[in-house]
Amino acid sequence: MKTHKTLQGGTICTGGSKRRIVVSTLAEAQFFADGGFDDIIYAVPITADKLPLAAALTLKLQAFHITVDHPDALEAVLQRAPAMGKPWSVFLMMDCGYGRDGVDPTDPDSILMARRLTEKTGVAAFAGIYTHGGHSYDHEGTEGDIASKVRETASEEAQAAAAFGKRLREEGIDVPVVGIGSTPTCSNPPLQGLQGINEMHPGNYCYYDVMQERLGSCTEEDIAVRVVTRVIGHYPKKNLLLVDMGWTACSKQGEACGFGRIEGHPELTVAGLKQEAGLLKSTHGQQLDFAKYPLGTQLRLEPYHSCAHTKQHDRIHVLADDQNTVIDTWAICHGW
Amino acid sequence: MKTHKTLQGGTICTGGSKRRIVVSTLAEAQFFADGGFDDIIYAVPITADKLPLAAALTLKLQAFHITVDHPDALEAVLQRAPAMGKPWSVFLMMDCGYGRDGVDPTDPDSILMARRLTEKTGVAAFAGIYTHGGHSYDHEGTEGDIASKVRETASEEAQAAAAFGKRLREEGIDVPVVGIGSTPTCSNPPLQGLQGINEMHPGNYCYYDVMQERLGSCTEEDIAVRVVTRVIGHYPKKNLLLVDMGWTACSKQGEACGFGRIEGHPELTVAGLKQEAGLLKSTHGQQLDFAKYPLGTQLRLEPYHSCAHTKQHDRIHVLADDQNTVIDTWAICHGW
Repeated sequence: MKTHKTLQGGTICTGGSKRRIVVSTLAEAQFFADGGFDDIIYAVPITADKLPLAAALTLKLQAFHITVDHPDALEAVLQRAPAMGKPWSVFLMMDCGYGRDGVDPTDPDSILMARRLTEKTGVAAFAGIYTHGGHSYDHEGTEGDIASKVRETASEEAQAAAAFGKRLREEGIDVPVVGIGSTPTCSNPPLQGLQGINEMHPGNYCYYDVMQERLGSCTEEDIAVRVVTRVIGHYPKKNLLLVDMGWTACSKQGEACGFGRIEGHPELTVAGLKQEAGLLKSTHGQQLDFAKYPLGTQLRLEPYHSCAHTKQHDRIHVLADDQNTVIDTWAICHGW
Repeated sequence: MKTHKTLQGGTICTGGSKRRIVVSTLAEAQFFADGGFDDIIYAVPITADKLPLAAALTLKLQAFHITVDHPDALEAVLQRAPAMGKPWSVFLMMDCGYGRDGVDPTDPDSILMARRLTEKTGVAAFAGIYTHGGHSYDHEGTEGDIASKVRETASEEAQAAAAFGKRLREEGIDVPVVGIGSTPTCSNPPLQGLQGINEMHPGNYCYYDVMQERLGSCTEEDIAVRVVTRVIGHYPKKNLLLVDMGWTACSKQGEACGFGRIEGHPELTVAGLKQEAGLLKSTHGQQLDFAKYPLGTQLRLEPYHSCAHTKQHDRIHVLADDQNTVIDTWAICHGW
């Protein structure tokens, strides 16, 4: 849910079930829980300071899952169950090569952590393995067939998670879930299939964006979100247009490739974004015909990174098929 | 006001008068007007679509000023006064070398625009010249005495604005205000003084940040704002710490220099920020002593760009002199 952080988006993404979602902040977990969602994974390693809120969510929901990747956090979790005899549901976060968070699956201590989770059955239940193949993003901008390279990373991600699951089962540990996911690896999954994997949790796929297009995850038509702006200045001598879209509306992500693409205007590229205004330049250096963009002209940016661009806003307007009529407005969850 | 966008910050910055402020969105203008502020400049070139809201603010406030830099916007403004016989108060935005927005002061058409504003006295009043020496930021990271280079830019900014004011006065045009400003040029103003200038409007100075420190605008002790985070993971083999601070908490600005500085921990540098988590590395490559940062340890980032880092939040907590007790919480204005 972390890309859109909206109840309505979550309803669509779960096919209306409002069950089995992943969030990246406890504020999101509360927002979705309050919105009638259940079976929620908080997919950032938890620490002791966050356990009171996690306990409240565990009691409120049929299923709320936390993740750990450090023995100290695990021991804090095991000190006591949330309350009323309900145990924690705990995923072991595993590093499948991304290098961000997660235990090393080749380290014997990682097996000990999973075993610890099976030992105090009244206090905690081992939910399984959670990993994120975020190194799939490293292929952006590289030479050659990027989608094929992403498939290779997807294969490594799935094999690493499945192998760790198999290893734990060989040790006699029940592993209910082996979950993987990143939008590139889910959009270009391994050709040989996903043996040993029973959960995927991509985020960005709900909107996609120009970055995912560059990664071979989608085509331009799949990009579901835009930042809308207006032309507010003409500088013919500098061959620049001013728009009322700055980094407060777009974030600074994607600066190297124009923050995305101005829909229907291949001749225009974002030259730079200041706080509340941005400059557009001619993509190939020709003098722009400023009469084509009178002051007030609306332009729509296909975002480079939809997670980042949408997060700069408090709400998202949903358009009818005419691409012009606002038919709904969704509140975006903020905070932590 | 655009850096903090808070009523309380605005009260401090105006010495309690709540008068004579500059904003960068109409949402901010409304927010401050609703909060009892008056004499407000909206310092982004206006277009016809924004005039209804600007008219409402002109009627509500004793003084609300708009800016123009295009003849079409000027003619839209001159079509009719806001209402009730109250004229628009209009600044002519001028480019003093920054290259973002503003008219070219050497272009005779710019003088015609100022004259146009003096011709329809019932509809509009010419408030003066507004410029922003934002090219002062270009000196960041260059060789040599950066503060001296900023002073040179400050001198160019002031001289360009004063010369344009003088030129307009020679043409018989009354120029009430000649306003300049950027935090670097206001922090290192021209040594020869500010002849011909009667208004300054920096923004970032209220918080300052590591970028301003690099520009010679301030020292570390002047930086008034922090992003607070906790250690949530240890990866000794990778020599990395995980924190629950991602680009949602920090923006992506300042990536090249660690997004700022971890206060009191010169040995730690932000290696990278993901959406809701970040990795800290050893600044000089030595193996970190992870026992020094138990899970849950609070760390404070002196931000690279306080305007951007604070804008990722809905509120700012004010600390007592003990740097630990929250004594107030300020709401941050969002939107446009």
